[in-house]
Amino acid sequence: MRIFGIDPGSACTGYGCIDSDGSRCRLVGCGAIRVSARLPLSDRLVAVYDELTLLLATHRPACVAIEGIFHARNARSALVLGHARGVAMLAASKAGLPMAEYAPTEVKRAVVGYGRADKRQVQQMIVLRLGLEAAPSPVDVSDALAIAICHAHAASFPQPVVSSTGRDAGVRSWRQYRSQGGE
Amino acid sequence: MRIFGIDPGSACTGYGCIDSDGSRCRLVGCGAIRVSARLPLSDRLVAVYDELTLLLATHRPACVAIEGIFHARNARSALVLGHARGVAMLAASKAGLPMAEYAPTEVKRAVVGYGRADKRQVQQMIVLRLGLEAAPSPVDVSDALAIAICHAHAASFPQPVVSSTGRDAGVRSWRQYRSQGGE
Repeated sequence: MRIFGIDPGSACTGYGCIDSDGSRCRLVGCGAIRVSARLPLSDRLVAVYDELTLLLATHRPACVAIEGIFHARNARSALVLGHARGVAMLAASKAGLPMAEYAPTEVKRAVVGYGRADKRQVQQMIVLRLGLEAAPSPVDVSDALAIAICHAHAASFPQPVVSSTGRDAGVRSWRQYRSQGGE
Repeated sequence: MRIFGIDPGSACTGYGCIDSDGSRCRLVGCGAIRVSARLPLSDRLVAVYDELTLLLATHRPACVAIEGIFHARNARSALVLGHARGVAMLAASKAGLPMAEYAPTEVKRAVVGYGRADKRQVQQMIVLRLGLEAAPSPVDVSDALAIAICHAHAASFPQPVVSSTGRDAGVRSWRQYRSQGGE
């Protein structure tokens, strides 16, 4: 199964694509979509959306894994992060891919075996699990790979802890909620 | 000038389109894109994006006005609101439209003349300014019209208070910030 992990951010969105047969994982590709903070937010969103759409079409994963809405400390930064996460989810949905969401503690538990592991421990386990020479950087890339590995781990259980969405699950059904225009 | 105002929300996104010649405003169309809270967030985002894309293509406005990132109380609700606002901005950018953002107090000051006006006062002024028989409901629709009227007001000044973005302002330039992939 090919899994595409995304760690969205307003300035840098990490992505990591892996192949998994349940127990072993292999790196397919990873990287970061960086957008200048000097660009207007709308342009940054277009960049993230277009690049993810291109990457999903290139890598052709079976599903997308993304960090859930669990860590929101500051309201303003949460609002800005929400923009990037929203267009990332839109890109996955538009590609017709099912999507799984995981809390940061779930990701750490799946990758390191400990829900309160730090970033360095996660990176070390990514290196070991994927047989890499060095930890992918920036940290957004290793986070995206960790989310993908977490999904590979969850999907190998009989009842995977995923909230499957995507086109098959209901995108066709939204038409009944269409605009109630006043024209 | 035709202005398309948007008040994004995770469950209901209000929109209002007006024609303005600087002093007078005329209603072109308004409504709400409602999505069931029972649908997965990714499906709701697809619904908002597709509907806004269709509405912008139908109404062919000269610009889009949206509420700025100024009011964020609760971090979690701000994160969810950010998703809807992100796809709304993406729809406007993809349509090649310049975008203006206004703080809620700016909107109230432009429409009612008082930055701390309540929702009811804003609705009453919408009725008067657009010559309507009743206030548009839900409140998201009148808020979207208020944002559009605010932009009409700002654009009639010699130096409008807008943060012009859109295709001409920089969407083409994002390519230099493209993915730094690790493949």
